[in-house]
Amino acid sequence: MQRKTGVVVASYYLGVDIGGTSTKTGVVSDEGRTVAKLRVPSVLHKGREEGLQGLYETLDQVVEQSGVGWRAIRAIGVAAPGTMDIPAGVIFHPFNLPGWENLAIRDLVSERFRKPAILQNDANAAAYGEYWLGAAHDARSLMFWTLGTGIGGGIIVNGEIVTGAHSHAGECGHIIIQMEGGPTSEHGIHGSLELYAGAKALVRRCEAALNAGARSSIRDKLEQGEELTPVLIADCAIQGDALAERLVLETGQYLAIGTVNIIHTINPEMVLIGGAMTFGQYETPIGRKFIETVRHEVRKRTFPIPAERTRIDYARLASDAGFIGAAGCALKAYSPC
Amino acid sequence: MQRKTGVVVASYYLGVDIGGTSTKTGVVSDEGRTVAKLRVPSVLHKGREEGLQGLYETLDQVVEQSGVGWRAIRAIGVAAPGTMDIPAGVIFHPFNLPGWENLAIRDLVSERFRKPAILQNDANAAAYGEYWLGAAHDARSLMFWTLGTGIGGGIIVNGEIVTGAHSHAGECGHIIIQMEGGPTSEHGIHGSLELYAGAKALVRRCEAALNAGARSSIRDKLEQGEELTPVLIADCAIQGDALAERLVLETGQYLAIGTVNIIHTINPEMVLIGGAMTFGQYETPIGRKFIETVRHEVRKRTFPIPAERTRIDYARLASDAGFIGAAGCALKAYSPC
Repeated sequence: MQRKTGVVVASYYLGVDIGGTSTKTGVVSDEGRTVAKLRVPSVLHKGREEGLQGLYETLDQVVEQSGVGWRAIRAIGVAAPGTMDIPAGVIFHPFNLPGWENLAIRDLVSERFRKPAILQNDANAAAYGEYWLGAAHDARSLMFWTLGTGIGGGIIVNGEIVTGAHSHAGECGHIIIQMEGGPTSEHGIHGSLELYAGAKALVRRCEAALNAGARSSIRDKLEQGEELTPVLIADCAIQGDALAERLVLETGQYLAIGTVNIIHTINPEMVLIGGAMTFGQYETPIGRKFIETVRHEVRKRTFPIPAERTRIDYARLASDAGFIGAAGCALKAYSPC
Repeated sequence: MQRKTGVVVASYYLGVDIGGTSTKTGVVSDEGRTVAKLRVPSVLHKGREEGLQGLYETLDQVVEQSGVGWRAIRAIGVAAPGTMDIPAGVIFHPFNLPGWENLAIRDLVSERFRKPAILQNDANAAAYGEYWLGAAHDARSLMFWTLGTGIGGGIIVNGEIVTGAHSHAGECGHIIIQMEGGPTSEHGIHGSLELYAGAKALVRRCEAALNAGARSSIRDKLEQGEELTPVLIADCAIQGDALAERLVLETGQYLAIGTVNIIHTINPEMVLIGGAMTFGQYETPIGRKFIETVRHEVRKRTFPIPAERTRIDYARLASDAGFIGAAGCALKAYSPC
């Protein structure tokens, strides 16, 4: 906040988290208050021009909705998935859609709205959101896991996002936890965490168990025509299905191995778990068992001091974390203070 | 360097790397010139009082040898192994010797010589030495592996040592690379990197191969009464023994898995390999094959951009890295500039 001749003038930062299916955006004050937010289906599949046009309209819309006006927006933070060059503000090919290759999205957004802008990886931005205003607001360092189809990560050390020399840091879903005898990805990577704890792996392990004859309400749902999806398994686990519960807790065990590796590498004060696949968090018995499994397995497998002191918890900002973190990064880069 | 009334006055920093068998110490100028160094056998086994007395005498000796005098020493950096509280300057129990538990070594050294002092983990200090004046002097971020009986690590991100929330960062020898079916440590840890790539593992794999009937000059040496040690295996590999060479290159493959995990986590600009078990480095065919194996396996198992751009090399400062890095940390903390 700036004080001018006795009047307190707040600054605002616009955050946007561009995803393949939806784009989340919001206006956040320098004190961390979200004054407006908007979630729209992404129109990226319509190509670069129309996709960008849609993005610009969404940003105009949320700023209008906020009532603060563009003049009060100091900077824009853009979060996007996939490989990118963060310092250059360029995304490489994040959506696997034609037209989105090597796009200088930071400068395009900056020029369109005549505001300074930053680019950040989406999981890194979400980590920063949780660090700034979420479950890690009192921590100095953080490992943030985002569980979904894939497993993403974001790392904060001493208040800074670790982006890496090639904008590749925090891609911890790809760390190898079973170098021999494990599954292999389509890219030829063996035994990575994601191949064990990602949503696809959950489905694969469920199929294997059903084929082996396991009893489960999942089988009934499939017979009623439902599709075997991570969400179906999660729902069945929430409803207490024993097979689904076992599969979910196995996921927690694998995630614990990944977490142990992070503890031995950067030793964060806190580890947070967010993303779509968090099983209702503390609202459900399976959500509570899941986090307890992660904590228990981590404690069992690491050294006494970090085992005892590393706080492991669920993230709190849900799908707002990305745009909040992106706005926070913009504030960090362009705050006048 | 400080300029006073036209006269250039250099500052000096005293670095000390306390090890279980030897203590390395040196006086380093603020420009990175080592003006004196001294390596003495550690007398830690004589207990706390005598051990500290020996340490103090060594420090007095190297400062005298340097010719700069205590007045020119601005601060002292102390590096030690094992678990510790770095910000508190306390080592917990690094030498497994009676009398060395919970020792406030930083303040003891500081009070004894009336100089500001810092404490750092030995592998972290060595990483900082290589970053400041060694093979990574032109890099902004670094993973440093130290290969010996155990596998240690040190991480630099944006010019800062990552020490972790509980002084446990960089302990990457303990990351799990084979969660199922791997060997188990005496502490009940399964499948860690050290259990595959540490010197003890090298000996264990050699024994297994010899018991399975493998032909090797190692067998002749054992029959001549030599002991099966990592050094013997390394020497045989340097002399071109096929079994020894295979075992050493397997070690390189395991180290590559660990390196892939570090790349997916902190994505350093550079990865350096140092320590006692580096097989003659570029001076020997096996040393050259070893680093090539690490590079090749890393490239095979990670993503295109970091695979292509991460520089992987041997460390350069050998056993001086620790005291140089400790002096560098003291400079960073207490330089007047």
